[in-house]
Amino acid sequence: MLQPAADSSAPDHQPSYPPVTSAWRFASRTEGMTASEIRALFAVASRPEVVSLAGGMPNLAALPLESLAEEVAELVARDGQVALQYGSAQGVPRLREQITEVMALEGIRAHPDDVVVTVGSQMALDLVTRLFCDPGDVLLAEGPSYVGALGSFAAYQAQVVHVAMDDDGLIPAALSEALLRLAAAGRRPKFLYTIPNFHNPAGVTLSVPRRAEIMDICRRHGVPVVEDNPYGLLGFDGQPYPSLRELDPDNVIYLGSFSKTFASGLRVGWALARPEVRDKLVLAAESATLCPPTFNQMLVSRYLASHDWKGQIKSFREVYRERRDAMLDALTTYLPDGCRWTHPDGGFYVWLTVPEGVDSKAMLPRAVSARVAYASGTGFYGTGFDGGGTDGGGFDGGGTDSAGLGSRQLRLSYCYPTPERITEGVRRLSGVLSAELDVLRTFGSPTRRAPDRSSNPSGAARRGPQSPSPDTT
Amino acid sequence: MLQPAADSSAPDHQPSYPPVTSAWRFASRTEGMTASEIRALFAVASRPEVVSLAGGMPNLAALPLESLAEEVAELVARDGQVALQYGSAQGVPRLREQITEVMALEGIRAHPDDVVVTVGSQMALDLVTRLFCDPGDVLLAEGPSYVGALGSFAAYQAQVVHVAMDDDGLIPAALSEALLRLAAAGRRPKFLYTIPNFHNPAGVTLSVPRRAEIMDICRRHGVPVVEDNPYGLLGFDGQPYPSLRELDPDNVIYLGSFSKTFASGLRVGWALARPEVRDKLVLAAESATLCPPTFNQMLVSRYLASHDWKGQIKSFREVYRERRDAMLDALTTYLPDGCRWTHPDGGFYVWLTVPEGVDSKAMLPRAVSARVAYASGTGFYGTGFDGGGTDGGGFDGGGTDSAGLGSRQLRLSYCYPTPERITEGVRRLSGVLSAELDVLRTFGSPTRRAPDRSSNPSGAARRGPQSPSPDTT
Repeated sequence: MLQPAADSSAPDHQPSYPPVTSAWRFASRTEGMTASEIRALFAVASRPEVVSLAGGMPNLAALPLESLAEEVAELVARDGQVALQYGSAQGVPRLREQITEVMALEGIRAHPDDVVVTVGSQMALDLVTRLFCDPGDVLLAEGPSYVGALGSFAAYQAQVVHVAMDDDGLIPAALSEALLRLAAAGRRPKFLYTIPNFHNPAGVTLSVPRRAEIMDICRRHGVPVVEDNPYGLLGFDGQPYPSLRELDPDNVIYLGSFSKTFASGLRVGWALARPEVRDKLVLAAESATLCPPTFNQMLVSRYLASHDWKGQIKSFREVYRERRDAMLDALTTYLPDGCRWTHPDGGFYVWLTVPEGVDSKAMLPRAVSARVAYASGTGFYGTGFDGGGTDGGGFDGGGTDSAGLGSRQLRLSYCYPTPERITEGVRRLSGVLSAELDVLRTFGSPTRRAPDRSSNPSGAARRGPQSPSPDTT
Repeated sequence: MLQPAADSSAPDHQPSYPPVTSAWRFASRTEGMTASEIRALFAVASRPEVVSLAGGMPNLAALPLESLAEEVAELVARDGQVALQYGSAQGVPRLREQITEVMALEGIRAHPDDVVVTVGSQMALDLVTRLFCDPGDVLLAEGPSYVGALGSFAAYQAQVVHVAMDDDGLIPAALSEALLRLAAAGRRPKFLYTIPNFHNPAGVTLSVPRRAEIMDICRRHGVPVVEDNPYGLLGFDGQPYPSLRELDPDNVIYLGSFSKTFASGLRVGWALARPEVRDKLVLAAESATLCPPTFNQMLVSRYLASHDWKGQIKSFREVYRERRDAMLDALTTYLPDGCRWTHPDGGFYVWLTVPEGVDSKAMLPRAVSARVAYASGTGFYGTGFDGGGTDGGGFDGGGTDSAGLGSRQLRLSYCYPTPERITEGVRRLSGVLSAELDVLRTFGSPTRRAPDRSSNPSGAARRGPQSPSPDTT
């Protein structure tokens, strides 16, 4: 009955596919799946001569690779039969205990049974959306909000109502107003998605007095909160903020991650949720990946047990503070008049607002030609809710048309380049901005020049969306 | 503005949650998310005194842990800055090249650009379902089918029409009939999900002549095929079967995995798909986890480059062949009259049909009390399609009521226990079966005794569904 498979000595042969046939019928949710708008520029932006202020890659230079190498070798040699085997869908029990110790640094009192380990906190975010969102459901999120969250919301066909922030984070009055507007339209959001600390992309932090206010508003309106906190331990004065979860434990799902405090390439994050939600999260996680990689979980667990991980976080904080300082100094030194930017107390990002008339998305190819890259603000807004309006105007001074949200904004990240490169990058950006403003003054609107050829190298389309990396995190 | 978080010296404190409030409103898809029916027994089944023929954990004893430890230490020490960092959502390019070499062993000619690396092939399966299934869509799958696939299908609210198998795998006439029946109801399935080689749970393989027939039927009906092939290289005579994908490259999404040929705990699998599907898969993967763990991918890549991985697969094959032999011998020796079972040429599983009147699900607690565990056949059938009927009767002799599908079947896995334990397990199972048959002969139906107390230890409910592992793979 058996026959040998055809010999294939040319595995590199590319089959020539006919056009996609009517046999392939995608689900309607795929309409919301679109590539990040700056993806086409990534290949160019990642060239060494370009200073990339676009990505969100953590700086790993400070990691103790030699001792980690010993740790991981011992893990394989001693515990390989367990580490290389399937594990529980909820995650390794010892790691879940240690995760409660990590969360305790931010005042969270949690039981290991209520922790679900995920493949990065992105997976937790995706599964939470899976659990709560039917197509057409409404969610609340800051405006702007995290690209990865918006991607998951779109994948589950949820509509996002953005709520404005200012330098103290989400504005309680704007939240109340959004909820009342939605209630008038007969809608109640499934949850508020928020990044209270060192916001991505806005770089602001929810003030302490506002935390209680926000939680009170949400409880009164029957809206649970998804608190996404990847940067919480990276506050530059070393003092964490009180978590929303501790203010109202049964109304919050808390998401955490080791991507910024240890190593992003291991993809270990977690969700903390009340038991009814946790049980469904575990079932959803089982459908999604059966279990998170046992190996990675045991490595993180060993690292937490045997290394000075708090000292390591302190080193990370110092690295990022120095870079934040370099960026803020350079912005003050170089940027033309009429620009405003946020002053992050932690995390990775500055949110820059440029003068009226400049279009951050249209300017990006010219910036890349000038060897500096950033993330255009337009990528940080989701599919709006038709009946409720969207208020993302906090940083715009209000009144911005939804279609143009983020068009005057840039996300600048200082996490990855050295301070010298950051300074040089901001200097280059300043040159590009000044040229835009000159054109504006002369012609009234910036010339929409075609992107430089080099910014769309031939072959990029062929290679598909893989290149190079999802570093808009 | 900053305040220190509350000191928490008691991270083990369990908050007492009030009953779930009306604020938490789950999506309708969660109705389809239910715990595996044998999960409650897992905690007991994993006790050392119980011979578990229930799980699907690969045997890793043959892995060269010492040299793997050196490999992984070098990976961290030398390439740690890359391995511990975010990577591309599509996967590490070098690994995707190597994956085409692995697939070439089964005659597949593929380009690395069309490979998407996933967190185990379970993630590929989940994302493919995400891409194609709107709620209420119909899918075809063998009856019985893989539990993990059924979980994803349920999570996306797809309905499954099972198509009967016999000892030569999926029956072409049954497939045609199901398609005609569905067409008469105005329905066309989004895809056929199939495991052609060493089927989980049925243990049968699609014969070579039937492969062309099946592909021809699917093409004529405009139905694409999702070919799931985790066991393809584990055929006991070492000769792989020709893949469905090579028979009709543009009508197949192929799923592969390193879980059975290398290490399941690394969670590295992949999908091979035509470019339009691949592009959407990459976008969906980005929403799901941003990227698969770079570290794991680079470790697999190094393993493939530096180890005799084909020799390792040969060792695995020999281990599993010996265990398959032990199981078939024991079944012949011990089982009472009236039992039938499949004779796998590879993979992990035997599908056992017991005499009429025996209820495999009801018998399980008694089996566990007798210190042997198995997976009841009832878990391998999905949510049926209302309008089209479901034909899962190939192994039942046909005509079985959909509600009772699998109730006379047991999946017995020989992958993990030693041959001696397998023999002992089958001997114990035989004792349980004989007792059931005695009761049947005396009373006409088996007594529905309550499960032994020890099979539901106190605290199991409290700990939630995590214990111990999703080993129904």
